Amino acid sequence: MTVHPTASIAARSAASVVTGSTPDTQVTSAAPSSTSAASIPGTPASAVITACRACTATIPSIVKASRIAWQSSTFSDMPTVAFLGLGAIGTPMARHLAAADLGLRVWNRTAAKAAAFSAEHRAIHAVTPAAAADGADVVITCLPVSADVESLCDGPDGLLATLRPGSVLVDCTSGDPATSRRLAARCAAQGVAFLDAPVSGGVAGAEQAALTVMVGGDAAVLERVRPVLAVFGKKIVHCGGVGAGDAVKAVNNALLALHLWSTAEGLAALTQAGVRPEVALDVINTSSGRSNASMNLFPERVLTRAFPRTFRLALLDKDVGIAAGVAREQKVATPMLQLTAELFRAAHVALGEEADHVEVVKWVERLTGTVIE
Amino acid sequence: MTVHPTASIAARSAASVVTGSTPDTQVTSAAPSSTSAASIPGTPASAVITACRACTATIPSIVKASRIAWQSSTFSDMPTVAFLGLGAIGTPMARHLAAADLGLRVWNRTAAKAAAFSAEHRAIHAVTPAAAADGADVVITCLPVSADVESLCDGPDGLLATLRPGSVLVDCTSGDPATSRRLAARCAAQGVAFLDAPVSGGVAGAEQAALTVMVGGDAAVLERVRPVLAVFGKKIVHCGGVGAGDAVKAVNNALLALHLWSTAEGLAALTQAGVRPEVALDVINTSSGRSNASMNLFPERVLTRAFPRTFRLALLDKDVGIAAGVAREQKVATPMLQLTAELFRAAHVALGEEADHVEVVKWVERLTGTVIE
Amino acid sequence: MTVHPTASIAARSAASVVTGSTPDTQVTSAAPSSTSAASIPGTPASAVITACRACTATIPSIVKASRIAWQSSTFSDMPTVAFLGLGAIGTPMARHLAAADLGLRVWNRTAAKAAAFSAEHRAIHAVTPAAAADGADVVITCLPVSADVESLCDGPDGLLATLRPGSVLVDCTSGDPATSRRLAARCAAQGVAFLDAPVSGGVAGAEQAALTVMVGGDAAVLERVRPVLAVFGKKIVHCGGVGAGDAVKAVNNALLALHLWSTAEGLAALTQAGVRPEVALDVINTSSGRSNASMNLFPERVLTRAFPRTFRLALLDKDVGIAAGVAREQKVATPMLQLTAELFRAAHVALGEEADHVEVVKWVERLTGTVIE
Amino acid sequence: MTVHPTASIAARSAASVVTGSTPDTQVTSAAPSSTSAASIPGTPASAVITACRACTATIPSIVKASRIAWQSSTFSDMPTVAFLGLGAIGTPMARHLAAADLGLRVWNRTAAKAAAFSAEHRAIHAVTPAAAADGADVVITCLPVSADVESLCDGPDGLLATLRPGSVLVDCTSGDPATSRRLAARCAAQGVAFLDAPVSGGVAGAEQAALTVMVGGDAAVLERVRPVLAVFGKKIVHCGGVGAGDAVKAVNNALLALHLWSTAEGLAALTQAGVRPEVALDVINTSSGRSNASMNLFPERVLTRAFPRTFRLALLDKDVGIAAGVAREQKVATPMLQLTAELFRAAHVALGEEADHVEVVKWVERLTGTVIE
Repeated sequence: MTVHPTASIAARSAASVVTGSTPDTQVTSAAPSSTSAASIPGTPASAVITACRACTATIPSIVKASRIAWQSSTFSDMPTVAFLGLGAIGTPMARHLAAADLGLRVWNRTAAKAAAFSAEHRAIHAVTPAAAADGADVVITCLPVSADVESLCDGPDGLLATLRPGSVLVDCTSGDPATSRRLAARCAAQGVAFLDAPVSGGVAGAEQAALTVMVGGDAAVLERVRPVLAVFGKKIVHCGGVGAGDAVKAVNNALLALHLWSTAEGLAALTQAGVRPEVALDVINTSSGRSNASMNLFPERVLTRAFPRTFRLALLDKDVGIAAGVAREQKVATPMLQLTAELFRAAHVALGEEADHVEVVKWVERLTGTVIE
Repeated sequence: MTVHPTASIAARSAASVVTGSTPDTQVTSAAPSSTSAASIPGTPASAVITACRACTATIPSIVKASRIAWQSSTFSDMPTVAFLGLGAIGTPMARHLAAADLGLRVWNRTAAKAAAFSAEHRAIHAVTPAAAADGADVVITCLPVSADVESLCDGPDGLLATLRPGSVLVDCTSGDPATSRRLAARCAAQGVAFLDAPVSGGVAGAEQAALTVMVGGDAAVLERVRPVLAVFGKKIVHCGGVGAGDAVKAVNNALLALHLWSTAEGLAALTQAGVRPEVALDVINTSSGRSNASMNLFPERVLTRAFPRTFRLALLDKDVGIAAGVAREQKVATPMLQLTAELFRAAHVALGEEADHVEVVKWVERLTGTVIE
Repeated sequence: MTVHPTASIAARSAASVVTGSTPDTQVTSAAPSSTSAASIPGTPASAVITACRACTATIPSIVKASRIAWQSSTFSDMPTVAFLGLGAIGTPMARHLAAADLGLRVWNRTAAKAAAFSAEHRAIHAVTPAAAADGADVVITCLPVSADVESLCDGPDGLLATLRPGSVLVDCTSGDPATSRRLAARCAAQGVAFLDAPVSGGVAGAEQAALTVMVGGDAAVLERVRPVLAVFGKKIVHCGGVGAGDAVKAVNNALLALHLWSTAEGLAALTQAGVRPEVALDVINTSSGRSNASMNLFPERVLTRAFPRTFRLALLDKDVGIAAGVAREQKVATPMLQLTAELFRAAHVALGEEADHVEVVKWVERLTGTVIE
Repeated sequence: MTVHPTASIAARSAASVVTGSTPDTQVTSAAPSSTSAASIPGTPASAVITACRACTATIPSIVKASRIAWQSSTFSDMPTVAFLGLGAIGTPMARHLAAADLGLRVWNRTAAKAAAFSAEHRAIHAVTPAAAADGADVVITCLPVSADVESLCDGPDGLLATLRPGSVLVDCTSGDPATSRRLAARCAAQGVAFLDAPVSGGVAGAEQAALTVMVGGDAAVLERVRPVLAVFGKKIVHCGGVGAGDAVKAVNNALLALHLWSTAEGLAALTQAGVRPEVALDVINTSSGRSNASMNLFPERVLTRAFPRTFRLALLDKDVGIAAGVAREQKVATPMLQLTAELFRAAHVALGEEADHVEVVKWVERLTGTVIE
């Protein structure tokens, strides 16, 4: 292999829109020219190739190191990476991967988003999960819930139709351990390794390639894909077997949820008792009751009444539910965690699908007849 | 005894034990000299004055500023301060006051402790609360619970027997607002101002004169005594009317309790799911689920199994109860806070009076059949 | 006096509207004729007297027995009874007392109600609490909350202005033990006995003179007033010292609240799982999960969507709060009871002052997106 | 068929110990004589047959009606029934089935129990689940948990190896809906119908053939097997699709658990407040706070300190967990139910596997430092 695999990307990207469904029947819908990598008709693919050549110098050193790592790994070449799920977090993650020269293919349920992405970055638009996974060394999924990942695996257009033995499915979804274990078993049946690898750090962390990646699965497999994860992750932690990454992510988020609610309760009571919430926060944040919620979310989002929509309450509700489920599965009595799950479930029902997670404070305000401002 | 003004302390402690009980019957054990700056008529001030002169250079600048402040305050002279309650937090607080040249009198239920203190520091040992308060401008109490303060007020030996109009009772106990309001009303009836002024920062904060002081009561009264509070407090916050300081302190501590328990639950579940707790904490502490409990208490005290006894669970149980009571009094629904109160109550019953607050984690471990290490 | 004291009632009712405020200044506003006992101008008082004579034969045997009991009690004569609080429960209670020929005086905050009552029954309308209590042997209060009773005691028009030594204040309010103990202490200071004696059985029980009366206070005092309580109570239980009646009533009602909510939760979950709630109730009510809530309230009021307004949620919220407070005061960890207090508090805020207690099920429905029908 | 199918039972029971594993390979271990139906060597099988003939007259009328029902059902003959799980509830259920002349085969994990049963009743001892199910029209399982039923299905000795199309698997285990749905799917794949049919009524109900049977699954299938269920069930209720029976049973038991705990909390608080628990129960049981727990379990088992071991806490903990899981699966916020699950989990850990469910009150006593007696 060469250090700069433009040629191979070009070769692969000869078929800009990959539509194949099973390994042997996979065909490219149109491959008229090596200069066309665009998935949207009329977009000059040469731009992609050119961009690829042009930007090499700007690839960050971590990625350069990655290349060397890959040379000594079990992959015989630079890994080819597929990325599925161009959401708020997934898009900046994919952007870093695109810049890292990894023969990136992208898939998204709403195809236009993937098409637009591939038009702007060094990436090929795959029209099915199977097409994305076909020939990929590392397939990364980043979707709302585990069930979405499961649904991408099935059928002739699914990931499992083309994932080849020796490849790795890295699921960056904030998933649930039970589904991850099921996915891992299905992957293992065809020689594919599986890692659950949810990320934390939010959109900002994703944009700065500074995510924390919590990994569950085989440690050796993690070492093989670590250079790829390092493209967008700053802290990559092996948490345990399959599902352990999901579990740690869910518990972290459940603690966020819990502290958000507990601080809201405390401030509501104090507000009613005549204490201004900024005064209370000023004290709490230099004392023992402080948390990420009190130090950052309340001053920036609640007291200001800004409540920006950065992370949906619906997703945090899901995460708390996963954490509560992990505790139940382990038969660990966790009254506070379980209560949090119920409170967030009711808040989610009351506030709807679009509410931001911090808006749960508005629900506490409504239940208590208080405004924390 | 130290390099610091032995002679003067020795001189002063000639009248070290003040035994008076009511204003008119109170007497000093010895009153030899007219150089007396003591606030109790007839007390030999020379020792005090000498001491005062001798150590001026070492008095921190905040105290120098305090003196000026007092000169311009409604008190006609430097305030005389009494301190009651030489516990783990109270003793270092009193030490700073002794060093600040404020004619300090100290009282403690176990008299030997006050006697020893006065032998070592520039302070007079008062054998009754009334003797301590007699002639004092500022009386500071620092006791386990509000009821203790109330009991110090009553009877011929009580504070209210000698507290003079214009003086201020500053209660640094982590008290409850209802009792504080009752105390304030009783003080007001004889022209004495009352501030509830619980502190946070622990023994370390007290020793470094770096406490946070949460003050409830009249803001103008706080301004008058602020220089005295500044002797041991780094951050002095006016929280609202009488009881507001108590309320803020209680809510802060309830959040500490809540986060201690929530983190224990999360780590117990993860431990059972095969994740090592230090790995989970490593992730949580760089993510959104972090709190003072996860960042400091678990790494330093739980994972190490050190569980040093720095702050009793019994007292934290009391604080959570106060916070829960504030919410109830305000008719603010706080399911999480109330559940915390119940969990800590049961843990307190199970672990006993001497257990440290962090040992509540051991109770979670027992309930869940887990060890977080 | 005679066994049938019509004459004495007439004599007393010569002054139909008693307005006196202190024992010695008490005067009657108008006493034109012994045939006029009506407090509403124009209402022929003779009707009352006639009714009195006419109905003697219908006085239940329990009351006849009572008369004998009173003759042998420490009261030198048949007791004179005052009743304050003509609400939904109080009115039928007072009706039985009126029929029992006990020289009844009635007071109500909205005076028109007391006036109307005295026009229809053998009762004198007292325009102040003091007037009602003046000369009464037994004063019965039945008000929404303990604080209402406390407010009736104070001032020149208050109960304590006229309650004479040896008399008994029986508080049938669903009160709180702490206030009852305060009331008892104030009564004791002037030689008046106090019993907290909340009732259960609802409006129907009150109308059928079939109430359960839970009594706290001195057992000997209860024996003295038992014949009076027996006029409206079927089961009269001495629960313990002052406040014990309140505590038992509050805990009973808290269990009602708790079971109402728990059954709603269970049925909401089953409804969502495809089970019709009447089928589930059919099973539960022949099985171990049954309660008064499942056996009576759900079939009659929820499945029918009738939700009649018989007992306000606001009052049940208050009762749960009292029970939760008793547990807290006793330092008894009661997570379920405390959670119930929080859930009912929030429901009360959400549903308002007029909602019936069973309407809390509508709140559970809203939180869970379910209709139990 | 004949009305009295003794002959056919005799024919079937020719092989007293059925050991076959698959339909075509199934063999009888020994079938020397039609007079030997005993599974324990040396036990005269004739006794079984004789008993069969002798007791016909005592078969209750419900069973006689059942026979007629079966004639009109899809089964071409009287149904042959297998019963697996001779526990505390299962044994009396099986006894009624044996008396009902239904060609009963019994299996139990501890074989000696099944052997003893078949020696005493008209039943054949099957040494494997497959042998029990082989040729059976209705297979009834009654085991601790759903996972036990699942494990009986697998492998060459499992139920699914011999269950024939058209037969019905009726699972009387207090199971969980998810496993029941999985079992139903596996059964359906080979033409076997599945009903989840947990029972309530306890040992006494089972002995009196007065159980309540909660049935999930196809209503028509229930009608076919209703006569068999009527042998031990007094009230047979169709709750909904597969899993609905489990769900109703679990919710009923969760309410039992919840009321047990709530009543314990209330009585602990009252006891500490000086009220004797029998007095409190006397009031509650004539008032609105009553439940099966307060009316039966506390008077009979707690106040007497008898705590007989009739139903294990471990199983009630499991049931509450199932109910909590149903609510979670349906995304229905159920804070009280979930809290109950946590409290019972911790109690189960603390009290161990053998504790009776009512002993959870002892745990509440320990947590609160109270004895309810």
